[in-house]
Amino acid sequence: MRVLGIDPGSRHTGYGVVENVGDRLVPVLFGSLSLPASMELPTRLGSIFTGIRRIIEQASPTEMAVEAVFVSRNARSALILGHARGAAMAAGIHGGLQVFEYSALEIKQAVVGYGKAEKSQVARMVGLLLGLHDLQDPHAADALAAAVCHIHARSFPTLYSPAQRP
Amino acid sequence: MRVLGIDPGSRHTGYGVVENVGDRLVPVLFGSLSLPASMELPTRLGSIFTGIRRIIEQASPTEMAVEAVFVSRNARSALILGHARGAAMAAGIHGGLQVFEYSALEIKQAVVGYGKAEKSQVARMVGLLLGLHDLQDPHAADALAAAVCHIHARSFPTLYSPAQRP
Repeated sequence: MRVLGIDPGSRHTGYGVVENVGDRLVPVLFGSLSLPASMELPTRLGSIFTGIRRIIEQASPTEMAVEAVFVSRNARSALILGHARGAAMAAGIHGGLQVFEYSALEIKQAVVGYGKAEKSQVARMVGLLLGLHDLQDPHAADALAAAVCHIHARSFPTLYSPAQRP
Repeated sequence: MRVLGIDPGSRHTGYGVVENVGDRLVPVLFGSLSLPASMELPTRLGSIFTGIRRIIEQASPTEMAVEAVFVSRNARSALILGHARGAAMAAGIHGGLQVFEYSALEIKQAVVGYGKAEKSQVARMVGLLLGLHDLQDPHAADALAAAVCHIHARSFPTLYSPAQRP
């Protein structure tokens, strides 16, 4: 199974493609798309959409995993984040991928084994699991964590809530 | 000029294609896409994206107009609305359209001549301007209003703020 994890944002969108080869998790492609603050919203969404479509063409994943967002600091930032997630998820669907959402708690549980782990612990653990000892891009790390969580959910479906269960 | 106006929402997305033929405004295609409440978010965004791509293929507009959203009742509804707008705008960009945003005030000003007009006045005025005397779908009416506003902004660019100016 080859999974594209996404950490969408209006300024930085992390992506990470992970494949499970037997018991091993192999990173295929990862990084982040960054867009200038001065770029207008429609162009920004177009760039996120096109960027993710290109990654799909390049790495041929079959499923997409995204962290579900339930709360946000305020309505304005929620609205902007929603646009970025909408464009990213539309790119996944358009590329023929099945799209799955996981809560932050589920992702931390899958990667670190502890739902209340710090962001830095998640990044370190993702690096260890994938053999990426110099993983410095936090957006790519979050995206890879979502992909690892999805592979985990595919392997142990009963550990996940019915809504998220693949 | 043939303009696709969009009123995106996670349950109902209004659309309306308008062409200006000399001084006249001609409705080309309009309606709304409604999705069941039970449909999951990724599928919902995929349906909005695909639906709008189909309308673009059918009616061949060259520009898209969307009402800009600045505030929302709460962060949760802003997030959901953002997803729908993101998928809709990504469909426009993917279809090769230039995408423009107008504030509710600018749309009301363009259609009714009064920025604080009621929603029902906007719908009635859109019906009159386009010769659609039985326009009952409120989402299609809002979408057509955005398209009419964009044609107005193209014709009288100095009336619009630099950010919105086509």
